Amino acid sequence: MRALFFDGSLHYDHQAPVPEPGEDEALIRVSMAGICGTDREILKGYKGFTGIPGHEFVGVVERVNGAYSGLVGKRVVGEINCGCGVCEYCSKGMDKHCPFRSALGIAGRDGVFAEYVTLPLRNLWEVPSHLQDEEIVFAEPLAAAFEITEQVHVRPTDRAIVLGDGTLGLLCAFVLKGAGADVTLCGRHKAKLAVAAAEKIKTRKSDELKKKRAYDIVVEATGSENGLETALDLVRPRGTIILKSTVAAKRKVDLSGIVVDEITLVGSRCGPFAPAIAALASRRVPVKGLLSAVYPLGEAQAAFEKAAQAGAIKVLLDLRGG
Amino acid sequence: MRALFFDGSLHYDHQAPVPEPGEDEALIRVSMAGICGTDREILKGYKGFTGIPGHEFVGVVERVNGAYSGLVGKRVVGEINCGCGVCEYCSKGMDKHCPFRSALGIAGRDGVFAEYVTLPLRNLWEVPSHLQDEEIVFAEPLAAAFEITEQVHVRPTDRAIVLGDGTLGLLCAFVLKGAGADVTLCGRHKAKLAVAAAEKIKTRKSDELKKKRAYDIVVEATGSENGLETALDLVRPRGTIILKSTVAAKRKVDLSGIVVDEITLVGSRCGPFAPAIAALASRRVPVKGLLSAVYPLGEAQAAFEKAAQAGAIKVLLDLRGG
Repeated sequence: MRALFFDGSLHYDHQAPVPEPGEDEALIRVSMAGICGTDREILKGYKGFTGIPGHEFVGVVERVNGAYSGLVGKRVVGEINCGCGVCEYCSKGMDKHCPFRSALGIAGRDGVFAEYVTLPLRNLWEVPSHLQDEEIVFAEPLAAAFEITEQVHVRPTDRAIVLGDGTLGLLCAFVLKGAGADVTLCGRHKAKLAVAAAEKIKTRKSDELKKKRAYDIVVEATGSENGLETALDLVRPRGTIILKSTVAAKRKVDLSGIVVDEITLVGSRCGPFAPAIAALASRRVPVKGLLSAVYPLGEAQAAFEKAAQAGAIKVLLDLRGG
Repeated sequence: MRALFFDGSLHYDHQAPVPEPGEDEALIRVSMAGICGTDREILKGYKGFTGIPGHEFVGVVERVNGAYSGLVGKRVVGEINCGCGVCEYCSKGMDKHCPFRSALGIAGRDGVFAEYVTLPLRNLWEVPSHLQDEEIVFAEPLAAAFEITEQVHVRPTDRAIVLGDGTLGLLCAFVLKGAGADVTLCGRHKAKLAVAAAEKIKTRKSDELKKKRAYDIVVEATGSENGLETALDLVRPRGTIILKSTVAAKRKVDLSGIVVDEITLVGSRCGPFAPAIAALASRRVPVKGLLSAVYPLGEAQAAFEKAAQAGAIKVLLDLRGG
């Protein structure tokens, strides 16, 4: 099969072996895959991953290794964390925190920048037939945005600000807007902010941001080093900061203010697929505006370069062609 | 009146002026006052406070400046934060986060290490008559412990660990135990841990603590620099760390783990008096075991020295005598 392979540098392989699904796993033919900030970090050496990267996808189940064959021939998206299935976390439905987990295209498991991928059946979600591949491929990053409303009670009177106008920042702004909050998106790119403004989300250029402590909810999704400090400058006493990027969390800051002002800091990672698929199905979240470019797998190098450009939001790889 | 005065060093004054209550304030004759870690920090220069320190007290209302005189002659305890009464925070019942607030014996307002103190009427709580002064004087630190159950949903299946066996740590352990959690208290002092053990709380010496990530709730109440790091070593994925001490929060640590493991970090300061008074009234929280010594005001120097000793828990000043 055709696949991208990373072992310190990225190779395009015409004749990679088709993977064999394990017990109760599906073999999925990938239709489209999204390039995410994490993929770009992996190509810089993040987590020391080697293998086939990529974790955002939509595909069609070709074969199942197991008794349940109901998904064969169905179009699916999939959750990326594969728990061991039996530990304390997995048995409580927290398999994404399983200490023995693998993560699709990130740790211990080949990903979706390939014609075929395998995933446990329990990770798969059938997708509504009226959605295009270009829409439903946003299920995974949108689920990460919906993790916010799983973790935090958003009230209609809440003033929220999202820091970072990348795909995740935009999706977080859409989700908070959908939850009824008064949302501002703060970022560095006029064109990206315009996507939010079209959805009646307030926007602010990073360099024009007034550092007043006025926000009930601050989402840190910049992926930049000073994100947490900025968040601490913006959150009001008793407010909540949602930390989405590990990069911002690495920057060591004095947290004594969070004691005095009783700030809550919430780490937030992957999220629930159900609300993401529902929001895409009803087209409440306008993901098409986030689509910057589509490349065939063979032009992955160009796709990654495009994804790294300042103005780009989401870049997809199309595997449907030959 | 007799009072302690701090202006870089601590003085005992026989003839300090009796304070004049402002509008809708009470003049309170102090019966007993507690020495807290914050007082000892203030004597080292914390917040640059000058004036009469002290904020834990029980006393009797002697006079009221205002129309409502229902509290005259009543025995009261009092909340320490005095908001402006009109700002955005005060008007939403969050006066303890009022940006213009003063804090009894800590910032902008003379405290309770004196025969008389003034406080707004709305800060006062009448205390049940069957309680001794030595018990109800714990209302303020116990309220701080009850802030935890205001902020965090404690489940009967939760495993909780409290770091720090000072007064606040012990009270937090009692409160969590009362909420039904499986509680361990971790500290450095055998005698203090024994107070918790007598209440069927598990105890662990700090140097014998296994750093396994097993706790749903970790309360950082050590007041020591490496408290937050220890908490991060102990909290399980999706668990909650409650930060009680600004000292621990000042130590800058890498927080990327809280994103990956979706940890919630909650800053926690002063708390609600109602559950504290109720718990004291029903004697559910055995505060008498925390009482290390009582000194007359004139022996404050000795009282502070006692409070600084490793084995001491709560030291009180008794102002009832002449």
